[in-house]
Amino acid sequence: MAMRRGEWTGPTAFKVPGYVQCNLVVLAESEAYDFLLYCQRNPKACPLIEVTDCGVPEPRLSAPGADLRTDLPRYAVFRNGVRGEDVSDIRALWREDSVGFLIGSSLTFDDALERAGVPKSEEVWVLNTDLPTTSSGRFKGSLVVTMRWMTPSQAIIATQLTSRYASNHGAPIHVGDPTDIGAELKQPIVGDPVSEIPKGIMPVFWACGVTPQQTALLAKPELMVTHAPGHGFITDLRADQFCIP
Amino acid sequence: MAMRRGEWTGPTAFKVPGYVQCNLVVLAESEAYDFLLYCQRNPKACPLIEVTDCGVPEPRLSAPGADLRTDLPRYAVFRNGVRGEDVSDIRALWREDSVGFLIGSSLTFDDALERAGVPKSEEVWVLNTDLPTTSSGRFKGSLVVTMRWMTPSQAIIATQLTSRYASNHGAPIHVGDPTDIGAELKQPIVGDPVSEIPKGIMPVFWACGVTPQQTALLAKPELMVTHAPGHGFITDLRADQFCIP
Repeated sequence: MAMRRGEWTGPTAFKVPGYVQCNLVVLAESEAYDFLLYCQRNPKACPLIEVTDCGVPEPRLSAPGADLRTDLPRYAVFRNGVRGEDVSDIRALWREDSVGFLIGSSLTFDDALERAGVPKSEEVWVLNTDLPTTSSGRFKGSLVVTMRWMTPSQAIIATQLTSRYASNHGAPIHVGDPTDIGAELKQPIVGDPVSEIPKGIMPVFWACGVTPQQTALLAKPELMVTHAPGHGFITDLRADQFCIP
Repeated sequence: MAMRRGEWTGPTAFKVPGYVQCNLVVLAESEAYDFLLYCQRNPKACPLIEVTDCGVPEPRLSAPGADLRTDLPRYAVFRNGVRGEDVSDIRALWREDSVGFLIGSSLTFDDALERAGVPKSEEVWVLNTDLPTTSSGRFKGSLVVTMRWMTPSQAIIATQLTSRYASNHGAPIHVGDPTDIGAELKQPIVGDPVSEIPKGIMPVFWACGVTPQQTALLAKPELMVTHAPGHGFITDLRADQFCIP
């Protein structure tokens, strides 16, 4: 409700712990089949939690009564592949042919990692890679990842634990050397540039729900609205139920 | 190759153990979006392994070089919701607008259950239930389940183990009394009618890939081709990788 009323416009990390958080993509119905298939072909980056019926902004299955037009704290707006200014309400952009895609987020398991004794990451980076995703129609592009810093023993616990959160990116896609996957620590999408990885630290990488935003740059849909990175949608689903639904 | 040549037209249980087996649904492109969304909304019954590009009978991602028109041992053919005679080859039915959906199958984990010390089921029943699935467009209907008989301790092992096979129906949807889910043991879809459950036996129920065939009876697509129950498509994917792809 605080987000709906515009009273909370900040990031959603550690907000309402224990519930599934989602990334959002809104596209026109004419693009929906290709994008739905893109998600099916890239389940680690785009694990689907719910797809709304055409024109219906309520996620009836994962958060009955919610409104995807108002209930995220911040939205990114892409027109023909170009990102404009962020907004905190998309009622004016929602159309009769809009379809909302809710995609599981690693924000869902941050709380679970802490419960398992892996300390809260001081910073979570979002990085581009040179790993291709599997295309569907016009949707294609490189995989975007989140990076967390851990000790090797924490990395093992995190791999065990996040494997159970398959609907929220699941197990890591890589551990160790960022150059193996073409990730440039000096040029993160989100986070402070890093010049050196501290000794004893192992970077751990998960597929990230910002990946669809990269596809927008190439597919150039007339209008694509997404969450702003780090600013997710919080569902009524329990994260610890593991399997959605 | 034996299936392609028509030399093996029998069931695929325990054939090529260790590889992911799939159920098949073939529909026209005009039905594909609604059915893709039906699968997304019912992931326990319809966990998607791959959706082919329109008109392409090769499952390029899960079995490069295979042909969905010839490489299953037996197919069921539904015209306007009525099942006709089974065939062993669908080259004459495949069209330019055909889309193939490969759906994970519990045949994938039968071998893993045996490795874990759960003896091979002498019989696997397929049963209708009164549990509704979540609809998408015209696709709707009740959940179809498989039933295996186990001791309670085997049922616990089976729950632990199959939870890891989320792309192949995952954990059971029910254990114990069949009437809780409206399953009529005297009227199975596949298997011998059962009048009494032996003492010490606990029926364990998994969502089943025959579920989409039930939707055909209601949605009545002009043409829908599926695998014949128990006669799956064997991919090149390793079952023990757990996450597809």
